[in-house]
Amino acid sequence: MEKLSLREQVQIFQTAYVRCIDSNMLEQWPDFFAEQCLYSVTTAENFRAGLAAGLMWANTRAMLHDRISALRHANVYERQAYRHILGQSSLIAQDDVQVQCETPFLVARIVQEDVTSLFATGVYHDVFELKGDKLLLRKRIVVCDSSRIDTLLAIPL
Amino acid sequence: MEKLSLREQVQIFQTAYVRCIDSNMLEQWPDFFAEQCLYSVTTAENFRAGLAAGLMWANTRAMLHDRISALRHANVYERQAYRHILGQSSLIAQDDVQVQCETPFLVARIVQEDVTSLFATGVYHDVFELKGDKLLLRKRIVVCDSSRIDTLLAIPL
Amino acid sequence: MEKLSLREQVQIFQTAYVRCIDSNMLEQWPDFFAEQCLYSVTTAENFRAGLAAGLMWANTRAMLHDRISALRHANVYERQAYRHILGQSSLIAQDDVQVQCETPFLVARIVQEDVTSLFATGVYHDVFELKGDKLLLRKRIVVCDSSRIDTLLAIPL
Repeated sequence: MEKLSLREQVQIFQTAYVRCIDSNMLEQWPDFFAEQCLYSVTTAENFRAGLAAGLMWANTRAMLHDRISALRHANVYERQAYRHILGQSSLIAQDDVQVQCETPFLVARIVQEDVTSLFATGVYHDVFELKGDKLLLRKRIVVCDSSRIDTLLAIPL
Repeated sequence: MEKLSLREQVQIFQTAYVRCIDSNMLEQWPDFFAEQCLYSVTTAENFRAGLAAGLMWANTRAMLHDRISALRHANVYERQAYRHILGQSSLIAQDDVQVQCETPFLVARIVQEDVTSLFATGVYHDVFELKGDKLLLRKRIVVCDSSRIDTLLAIPL
Repeated sequence: MEKLSLREQVQIFQTAYVRCIDSNMLEQWPDFFAEQCLYSVTTAENFRAGLAAGLMWANTRAMLHDRISALRHANVYERQAYRHILGQSSLIAQDDVQVQCETPFLVARIVQEDVTSLFATGVYHDVFELKGDKLLLRKRIVVCDSSRIDTLLAIPL
């Protein structure tokens, strides 16, 4: 059994996270988060200005589950899909119980019978909770580069 | 000499595979496959429906060589090029002789004197054959997210 | 403390390099280069033809600093930003003092109040100088796939 470095553990986590979304296994998405967590989607402009309010916000895993239920009910996922391509993660800070990372992302949006487009680019600003060899997101701020992000977006980033 | 994990071996393979295509070293492309193999390009819609027929299909390395010869004869590569950007590979299953992986991809198409476009996104569904420290593709199903993929595509994905 | 392979060191370097640019920490960008270095941006067409002249060229770290000063003075960065997504690096050759690599890149350009576009794709052709566990770029030729690259580009790639 290979012994994984923290860097590798983070990469494997990020890979599994985007595979979950892009494979439409959205019901499993909240399991990447700690029960008490912060998930927020914002713009680089707001993030730099220190504005907390984002396009999307949740602070418990239960809220993330509610979000997916609403999304399934609205049937949004049937007409479109995402494809995330991530860059490597930068480990910014770490101690025995948590690690802070930044990971660049690019998301393409696939709409059936339409052309595939560059939907969003940006950075995940993450704080992971370390529990043995398991990682959980304590905090994920999805900072989108553009301010022209679709505010009706429903699928998690 | 560094000892590589299976995960690293797969990453190195994938990196070499797309470098081969994007550097126009297409004659070396079939060498990434086992002699008896399956290479297929299909859409997510067909893949979910379990339809075997794809946009492109081959089941021997010799067929892959034929494909490249035809492509060179048609001179397709002169006017366009691809740039693959891959995400990290997910190891889905493995035993002593093979490993099953999924790897997300994004391909940009560069046409000289024209604007670069987002050509395709999707996932490689792979089965690798393990021979010592060498990997060979026993099976690669290229599942494109969009159904609007150019069916005249000639360059391997 | 984890012991990093050369491959991992290169990946960490590349990740830090693009994070520096995309986070607008441009004053730190020259520090990724050796004092005597070659930084050049060119097209695949010119690169294949062996043409040295590129869209941008510098052969000392001091010239790179000058470039950033000019850029800050022109205030270019206020209106746009880049997002680099890199593929894995291929180690082409190495000895005790240097390593030669190729790394594919995709750059999105974010212009506020406008749509995000696919700005450039290509390959970094690098020669790194090894100094203990520290890497420095002795040479980076940024080879852009398309010949239609914006020649007024100011932000480093």
